[in-house]
Amino acid sequence: MTGRAGSRPGPDSIMATDKKSKLKARLPRGLADRGPGDIAATQTMIERIRAVYELYGFEPVETPAIEYTDALGKFLPDQDRPNEGVFSFQDDDEQWLSLRYDLTAPLARHVAENFQHIALPYRSYRFGWVFRNEKPGPGRFRQFMQFDADTVGSASPAADAEICMMAADTMEALGIPRGSYVVKVNNRKVLDGVMEAIGLGGDENAGRRLTVLRAIDKQDKFEWSEVAKLLGPGRKDESGDFTKGAELNEDQIEVIREFTVEYSDGSFTSITPSTHMGLVESGLELKKAGQFELLEIEALVRKSGYGPDRIRIDPSVVRGLEYYTGPVFEVELLLDTKDEKGRPVRFGSVGGGGRYDGLVSRFRGEPVPATGFSIGVSRLQAALQLIGKIDTTPAPGPVVVTVFDRNRLADYQKMVATLRAAKIRAELYLGNPKNMGNQLKYADRRKSPCVVIQGSDEKAAGQVQIKDLIEGAKAAAAIASNQEWRESRPAQFAVAEDKLVDAVREVLARHDVTWG
Amino acid sequence: MTGRAGSRPGPDSIMATDKKSKLKARLPRGLADRGPGDIAATQTMIERIRAVYELYGFEPVETPAIEYTDALGKFLPDQDRPNEGVFSFQDDDEQWLSLRYDLTAPLARHVAENFQHIALPYRSYRFGWVFRNEKPGPGRFRQFMQFDADTVGSASPAADAEICMMAADTMEALGIPRGSYVVKVNNRKVLDGVMEAIGLGGDENAGRRLTVLRAIDKQDKFEWSEVAKLLGPGRKDESGDFTKGAELNEDQIEVIREFTVEYSDGSFTSITPSTHMGLVESGLELKKAGQFELLEIEALVRKSGYGPDRIRIDPSVVRGLEYYTGPVFEVELLLDTKDEKGRPVRFGSVGGGGRYDGLVSRFRGEPVPATGFSIGVSRLQAALQLIGKIDTTPAPGPVVVTVFDRNRLADYQKMVATLRAAKIRAELYLGNPKNMGNQLKYADRRKSPCVVIQGSDEKAAGQVQIKDLIEGAKAAAAIASNQEWRESRPAQFAVAEDKLVDAVREVLARHDVTWG
Repeated sequence: MTGRAGSRPGPDSIMATDKKSKLKARLPRGLADRGPGDIAATQTMIERIRAVYELYGFEPVETPAIEYTDALGKFLPDQDRPNEGVFSFQDDDEQWLSLRYDLTAPLARHVAENFQHIALPYRSYRFGWVFRNEKPGPGRFRQFMQFDADTVGSASPAADAEICMMAADTMEALGIPRGSYVVKVNNRKVLDGVMEAIGLGGDENAGRRLTVLRAIDKQDKFEWSEVAKLLGPGRKDESGDFTKGAELNEDQIEVIREFTVEYSDGSFTSITPSTHMGLVESGLELKKAGQFELLEIEALVRKSGYGPDRIRIDPSVVRGLEYYTGPVFEVELLLDTKDEKGRPVRFGSVGGGGRYDGLVSRFRGEPVPATGFSIGVSRLQAALQLIGKIDTTPAPGPVVVTVFDRNRLADYQKMVATLRAAKIRAELYLGNPKNMGNQLKYADRRKSPCVVIQGSDEKAAGQVQIKDLIEGAKAAAAIASNQEWRESRPAQFAVAEDKLVDAVREVLARHDVTWG
Repeated sequence: MTGRAGSRPGPDSIMATDKKSKLKARLPRGLADRGPGDIAATQTMIERIRAVYELYGFEPVETPAIEYTDALGKFLPDQDRPNEGVFSFQDDDEQWLSLRYDLTAPLARHVAENFQHIALPYRSYRFGWVFRNEKPGPGRFRQFMQFDADTVGSASPAADAEICMMAADTMEALGIPRGSYVVKVNNRKVLDGVMEAIGLGGDENAGRRLTVLRAIDKQDKFEWSEVAKLLGPGRKDESGDFTKGAELNEDQIEVIREFTVEYSDGSFTSITPSTHMGLVESGLELKKAGQFELLEIEALVRKSGYGPDRIRIDPSVVRGLEYYTGPVFEVELLLDTKDEKGRPVRFGSVGGGGRYDGLVSRFRGEPVPATGFSIGVSRLQAALQLIGKIDTTPAPGPVVVTVFDRNRLADYQKMVATLRAAKIRAELYLGNPKNMGNQLKYADRRKSPCVVIQGSDEKAAGQVQIKDLIEGAKAAAAIASNQEWRESRPAQFAVAEDKLVDAVREVLARHDVTWG
C-alpha cells in the first residue's frame, strides 16, 4: 500500500476482483453428486426391494418433497434444538414450508387428506430423497434416500409381524445371507410401562423419559457402565463435555438394565418378570399390553417359519423418532467386514420403523392405527457394495466413430446413426478431431469395445477400419516394442462400409459386450 | 358470551380450541401426490428415454436437490421479479441455498467442480424433480420432473445435431408416431444478429432485447397483430392490464416478422435475405455465424436420414431461459386431441434446450462449450396418457387370505407366507375380521383375482375355499336373483390345504394375471 493513491485500484485489487468474479464450483457440505456406478447400484436395489413389497401386496404412492411445516410436525430425535433438523422457508402467503425429513409424516398427511378414497387397511410403499438440516459427517448426509412401507388402518399385531417378515425377506432379496442380518423387535409400551413402574410416569417426567430412551439407544456405542452414567447423574466424555443424566437411583437403573441387557437373548418369552421385576409387576397394564403384542408378533412370525435367527426381540431397540407408540423394529447387519484399508467396519442399523398410531390421528381427530418400516437406502448400499453384493460396474462404453477428415463429419455421423439404428451403443467423437491419438485415448477412457476409422484410403476403397480395443489391450500386454506394435497392428481390420454393423456385432460378441 | 366469566372457557371456546388443535391435512398449492397408475407410467417413460440416451452413448450422473444459490445463478425467464422463481433458504453459516429450478445449472456446477476427472466431450443424462416458486395453475406445478441430456466440451454443431436426433428418436420410442411431433431448431445468434441490425445491440438495449424475445415467444398464443403490439408501443389484455412493449418502429417490426413468421416453413435454406434483409445484411457476423451453424446442423441431420418432418428450423423458437447462447431446440407435439369433456387440447412444447456456452465458464474462467436438452416428463406424460400411448393401469391386486376365525390368525398368516414364497402376490386381511362381507368388499376394491377362505368346516376337512373374483363378477352379471347366486355359488371351489398354491395358480392362469 506504500505510496499509492487509495482511490485508484492497483494491480493487486484488480486481481482480487478477478478472483472474486470467478464463481466457486462447490456443493454445500453434506450433499453429494452420484456417478454411473452408484446410480446403477441404487437402481438394482430399488428394483429388488420393490419386487418384495409388491409381492406382499403393497402398492406405490408418492408425495412431494415440500410440505407445510405444521403438517410434518417435529419428530426428529434431537429435541434439544427444536428448530433444527429441518430445512424450512416461508411461502408467498407467509406460511412455513419444509423439506420432508422422512417419508412417514408425509404419508400420514396423504392418508388423512384422502381418507374417503382409500380402502383401509392400506398397504403402501415409496422411495425418495429426504432432507435433514444436521451436521454432516462421514457417511452422514443432508440428503439421503429412504424406501418405506406402511400399513395404515390396522391395529393388529399381524400388521407389525408382516412388516418384520417383509424386512427379513428384503434383506435376503438384496443378497444378504441368512445369519448376516437380524430384524430386532421391541415395544415402546414395555419401556413406557417399565418407566412408569419406576416412577417416571406423567407429563412432568417426559423429559427424563426421553433421556432414558436416548441412554438405552446408546448401548451399541457404549459399555453398560457408561450407559448407567447417562441413566444416573450424567457422563463426561473424552473431550471433557458433560451430558446431564436422567438422575435415576441405583434400583431404577438396575430395572432398566434387566430389561435392556439381561433379556436380550432373542427369545420373546424371556420378558417375564425376574427378581427386580417384582417392583415392576404392580399392575402396569401398559407394560403387559406391550408384552402381549410382542408375544402375538412372535407367534405369527414363528408359525410362518421365521426363526429367531431372522426376527428376534431386543429390548435395547428404542428408535429415535418421537412418533412411535408401540412395536418398534430395527434391521441390523451382522457383517464384520473390512474397509479398503483393512480396518473393521460394523454397519449396525440399516433400517427401522414401528407403530405410530398417533400420526394420522393428528389430522383426523379419530384413532387411525398405523405401522411401517423404512430402509436407509444410501447406508445399506454402502454396506452391500463393501461386501460385493451389488454390482456397481457401469454399462460398457459406446462404440466410438472417429473423425479423420473434419469435412466429412456428416458421413461419420451417418455411420453412428446406422449403428444406433441397429441398437448398438455408439457415438461420434465430438472433441477437436485434429489428433487421432487423442480420439483413441478418449475411446479408452470411455471403455469403448471398439472404434471405427475411415481415412481417405478407406473411403476410396469403400471400407472402414475397425479397431478392437479389448483385444488390442490384451495384445499390447504381450508385445515388446512400439515398432513391433505398429507393424503388426493387432486387433485391427478392414471391412466393406456396408458390413459395418455386422463387423461391430462380431467384435461385441467376441467379448460378450451387451448393454442394458 | 353473555353472563360468563371471561377467565373460564365456555363450550364455544373449547370447541374453537379443538378445531384449532386438529391439524389440517393439506398440501401447499402447486404440489401433488402420485398414485400407482401415475408412478407406473413415469417409470415406463423413464425406462424408454433412458434406453435411447444410453444407445447414444450418454451416461447417468445425478446432483442433489439443494445447491448454493450463487452456483445455480438466476436464469429463469421472469426477470421482472429477480428473487422469485426459486425456493431459497439460509444455511447455518448464513450462505444462501436454493432448490434446483432445472437440471442444467447443477450439471454446469458438477462439471466445473470435477473438471480434472471428466473426459471431454462429456455426454451425460439425468432425471429428477425440479422446483419453481411460481404461481401454480392448471398443469403447472411447483415440483415437476425433468429428464435432461447434455454434451459438455464440444463446440461442434454435430453435438447440437445429435441432441436433436436423440430428441426425435426419444419421441418415437415413447410411442409418438412420426408426424405427430417435430423438433424445432433456431439459433439465438441469428435473432441477436437481427436485433443488432435493427439497432438493438449493446448493453444499453439488453432490456428491450429481452422484451423482443418474449414477444416472439408469444407467437403460439397470440395472432401476429398482438405480437406486433408487444414489439411496438405495448398491449392491453382482455382484463385491461397494459404490458409495455419494446417500442420498435414499423420497419423494425417488419424485419422481426420476416424472420419469425415468413421463413418458418421448415426449410433451413429459407433463412436467406429478402427485401427487408438488405437492412440486415450489413456485415453482421453474429447472424451469419448463427445461420452457418443452422446449415451445418441441417446437413448433419439430413445425411443421417432425419427429414424436415422430424427436425426443422422454426425462427419463432426462443426458449425462455437466459443462459442459451447459440442453437435452441424445442419439441412440439402436433397432436390435436380432445380431453375427457371433448374439448380440443393442444400440447405444444414438451421439451427444449439449446447451447449454453457460458454456464460452465462462469466457474472456470475459460471457455467450456455445452449443449443440452430437457424433457418435461410430467407434461409429456399427461400428453401420452391422453393419447393412450402409455399404460397407467396399476399391477393386479393381491390374492387376499380372509380371516374367518380371529383366533387362527397365525394359520392364515402362514397361508399368505406360503403363497408369497411361491411368488404369488398375496396379503392377509388386516382389518376388523368380524364381517366376511367387508373382507370380500375389500378384496373387490383391491382388484384381487381371488380370495382364500377357511372356516371351521374346511379346517376340519383339511381344505380351503377359493373364490375366483374375476369369474364371479362375470357370473354375477348373468345371474338374475340373489337367491340363485347363493345357491349356485359360482366361481367358488374347495381344495385340499396343501394344494393351495396350485389352485391359486390355476385361477391366475385362467385370467392371465401376472405381476411385475
